Amino acid sequence: MPDNLTEIIEELVLANRILSNEGVLDAFGHVSVRHPGDPSRYFIPRHRAPELAEVSDIVELNLDSEPVKPTEFRLYSERVIHGEIYKARPEVNAVCHHHAHAVLPFAISGRELVPVFHLGAVIGEVPFWDQRDEFGDTNMLVIKPAEGASLARALGPHWMVLMRRHGATVAGTSLRELTFRTVFGCDNAKLLSQAIAHGHVDTLSPGEAKLTSAHQLRPPSQGRAWDYWVRRVEKAGLLPRPAKAAAARSKPKAAKASKPKAKKRR
Amino acid sequence: MPDNLTEIIEELVLANRILSNEGVLDAFGHVSVRHPGDPSRYFIPRHRAPELAEVSDIVELNLDSEPVKPTEFRLYSERVIHGEIYKARPEVNAVCHHHAHAVLPFAISGRELVPVFHLGAVIGEVPFWDQRDEFGDTNMLVIKPAEGASLARALGPHWMVLMRRHGATVAGTSLRELTFRTVFGCDNAKLLSQAIAHGHVDTLSPGEAKLTSAHQLRPPSQGRAWDYWVRRVEKAGLLPRPAKAAAARSKPKAAKASKPKAKKRR
Amino acid sequence: MPDNLTEIIEELVLANRILSNEGVLDAFGHVSVRHPGDPSRYFIPRHRAPELAEVSDIVELNLDSEPVKPTEFRLYSERVIHGEIYKARPEVNAVCHHHAHAVLPFAISGRELVPVFHLGAVIGEVPFWDQRDEFGDTNMLVIKPAEGASLARALGPHWMVLMRRHGATVAGTSLRELTFRTVFGCDNAKLLSQAIAHGHVDTLSPGEAKLTSAHQLRPPSQGRAWDYWVRRVEKAGLLPRPAKAAAARSKPKAAKASKPKAKKRR
Amino acid sequence: MPDNLTEIIEELVLANRILSNEGVLDAFGHVSVRHPGDPSRYFIPRHRAPELAEVSDIVELNLDSEPVKPTEFRLYSERVIHGEIYKARPEVNAVCHHHAHAVLPFAISGRELVPVFHLGAVIGEVPFWDQRDEFGDTNMLVIKPAEGASLARALGPHWMVLMRRHGATVAGTSLRELTFRTVFGCDNAKLLSQAIAHGHVDTLSPGEAKLTSAHQLRPPSQGRAWDYWVRRVEKAGLLPRPAKAAAARSKPKAAKASKPKAKKRR
Repeated sequence: MPDNLTEIIEELVLANRILSNEGVLDAFGHVSVRHPGDPSRYFIPRHRAPELAEVSDIVELNLDSEPVKPTEFRLYSERVIHGEIYKARPEVNAVCHHHAHAVLPFAISGRELVPVFHLGAVIGEVPFWDQRDEFGDTNMLVIKPAEGASLARALGPHWMVLMRRHGATVAGTSLRELTFRTVFGCDNAKLLSQAIAHGHVDTLSPGEAKLTSAHQLRPPSQGRAWDYWVRRVEKAGLLPRPAKAAAARSKPKAAKASKPKAKKRR
Repeated sequence: MPDNLTEIIEELVLANRILSNEGVLDAFGHVSVRHPGDPSRYFIPRHRAPELAEVSDIVELNLDSEPVKPTEFRLYSERVIHGEIYKARPEVNAVCHHHAHAVLPFAISGRELVPVFHLGAVIGEVPFWDQRDEFGDTNMLVIKPAEGASLARALGPHWMVLMRRHGATVAGTSLRELTFRTVFGCDNAKLLSQAIAHGHVDTLSPGEAKLTSAHQLRPPSQGRAWDYWVRRVEKAGLLPRPAKAAAARSKPKAAKASKPKAKKRR
Repeated sequence: MPDNLTEIIEELVLANRILSNEGVLDAFGHVSVRHPGDPSRYFIPRHRAPELAEVSDIVELNLDSEPVKPTEFRLYSERVIHGEIYKARPEVNAVCHHHAHAVLPFAISGRELVPVFHLGAVIGEVPFWDQRDEFGDTNMLVIKPAEGASLARALGPHWMVLMRRHGATVAGTSLRELTFRTVFGCDNAKLLSQAIAHGHVDTLSPGEAKLTSAHQLRPPSQGRAWDYWVRRVEKAGLLPRPAKAAAARSKPKAAKASKPKAKKRR
Repeated sequence: MPDNLTEIIEELVLANRILSNEGVLDAFGHVSVRHPGDPSRYFIPRHRAPELAEVSDIVELNLDSEPVKPTEFRLYSERVIHGEIYKARPEVNAVCHHHAHAVLPFAISGRELVPVFHLGAVIGEVPFWDQRDEFGDTNMLVIKPAEGASLARALGPHWMVLMRRHGATVAGTSLRELTFRTVFGCDNAKLLSQAIAHGHVDTLSPGEAKLTSAHQLRPPSQGRAWDYWVRRVEKAGLLPRPAKAAAARSKPKAAKASKPKAKKRR
């Protein structure tokens, strides 16, 4: 976990690149992280495609999703999604709103998105939210604070919520956990769609889901996946300049992380 | 919006690259733009794959789809699609005819292509046209003016028309709007096909479709998506030489576009 | 059409690269061309993945599929597919045997592969061949001359044949026609599979199929698609060294080809 | 087959890259090879994404999956899969555990994975294993020796086993055979899923499956596919530094392999 503002902002930019490179985000969607030293603020790129966001594009907002300092930047119109979830869920430190093609079919068909393989366990129970239920016909964007608060209520104590005819919003205790849950949530959705086409779906038992999610959210799995996605970002020529240092920093850490367990062995 | 001929021709080349790079166009299909200063003319590449078209390949045609100046270039055999739509629809300034794999299944199965997520709202109502109805057995290409006029009638006041066993034609008030509608029309089609496989489809209400389409066609959404697609063209090594300048020009504009709203905030 | 042996061998290598790059061929499958000056011989790469074949890998075989000159090269075990089709069909000058994922589902399910969009018209009527019918349990490869002859009989007067639980074989009057039919045959198969999933399939009328196929097999369509695929091979870094000259040669030709029609216009 | 430790370790790294590049492995999954000189040991990368594994990441484990020499490296938590299969199956010299999207739908739906095209014959009969049957609710990972032994029993005399709601494990007599079976096992699964969507599935007869598998596992097919995958790894910029020499070494070998048969011909 990065321990200062520069590092967390660089990690936010990197998470934006990873989630774009893994096919979750396109021109739209956004990722934010809560200020590590002040829970009443969060960081998010200005209004632009996540893959294009640089460190200099990151703005600091309060939980009403207003900029802390005056800015000339246009902001994401749906930023209240982030602010309202941070308000409602103190343990959430990172949020991603996306329209990935893997999960959209569930938002359109209304089929339940349930964990069907071990890595998918991290999505937990995924409720639906339909903006139309509370707000009638709208432009389908979550722009008003009341809309964001309604979505946060639908998320409740869970970690992912499907938005009918729109997309999904995912939460995490950290950027790495968020990235892991978002990518494997998409993988789980793709596999579930294929099993639906096979005519039968087997799901994780509640006990399996709980044990497996807890195991996959431990640092070794998280770090192994993160290092892999960073390498893929690098191969795609997408490593942000300032984040190159961050990527380098993350490697010795990963090595350090492996030592405790390894030392017990001989 | 480009304000002189050089810029609009460069933007046309760029739109051809974007739509090829996003998987809409392959060896076939074509994109045109109306002359900004003379509504009785339009620009379109000569007969070659859209991705390969350069500024020097652009020809100027009248609305009967004949070249304004003598040319040695072979022209697209289906160019009347463009001319006849420009004749019938004064507010249309850009047209794309394509055979994208995302929408062809609808042209083959006859399933209705309806908006199923917010970005898909921009397709509006999508009528069908079957060349066979009026012209019997043909080589299936829209070559004769009467065939183009028939297609334009089927399009009517709408923005996209499906051509049975052939493809689709999309219209826009500008190249950017056309590109946005074409790409997200394909995304909407892919997602709808997947929801069909789930066994249930939820669609936008008429009110949602209207409000959402209007919102997505505003400059900020258009610009954000365009900048993203240009970057992807650049990553793929497809940025046309003269358009590099145009791409550079578009960036300060995008920044400028964001200022009005941003200035209100502080 | 290349007019000497060097050119035709370079074009053969290029066709191998194109069909690999377009996802038709992988480690397996093969493409051959008949000797332009001696109809009793044909050229084909030695036993290696088509994408890796160089000009120096091309061998010359007689119609019994034996090498004309002694060679140390291992040859494709299924080369009789080519020889037997060249024997049976004097007008065929190029053959491709492949296991493309687009068409295999038809070879497995037994669903008929019929033209469902204009470019797919070039496949014509596609018969099935099941090696098991005549030869019982085998290693499923077409190795014996009798097996090749049986396949050629199943192909009959057509241009594509599906081989049950195995793949497909496609024929053409030239390498360019073969490449066009093979790629758009795969596209047609993909689109048909998707329309099947939609629950309804509309097909070309016999008259449409005939008129459309004839039109698409004319030089302008062929050249436009070939130039596009060559450019894609180039972008993928797969342009064979000797073929670079051939690719350069093909461009002025394409320009020349467009002139006759263009000259009539003014 | 490599004949010394350096070569086999380089080949193991290359197999990891190939299986990542072909879409079988992602951040997770692992590949091992038995020590060619000591059947009671095997080589496997330390705990990291297979694509990132270098020669310096390879560790040597005994069949209880404990390191032969003390190491600071974190090890794969599921390494008992490898050790227990090597214990139970003396003829197995290479093992891959993966979660490829091609086969997961079968692990979720419970549909039988059967050979449906000639190259798929190499998977043979594929049994299912459900960790829940013997161990109840777990974290779904095969961590305990008893779990690995149970999986090895389910594999029995076969070469591939599906793990419910988890993935698959594949075995081979060599790294090349393992790679071939793993990649074409995935291809077979993809094609079978598509045939299921067509509504009918034709399968290989038992006689075809036996004859075809035996033929495809001979050196020429194996070598042709391996050379192709190595080239693709090279194109993707993934050729490991030390393996570059190995790749170069493999080429003259392939040439040598072709000579015996070729010499008979003239």
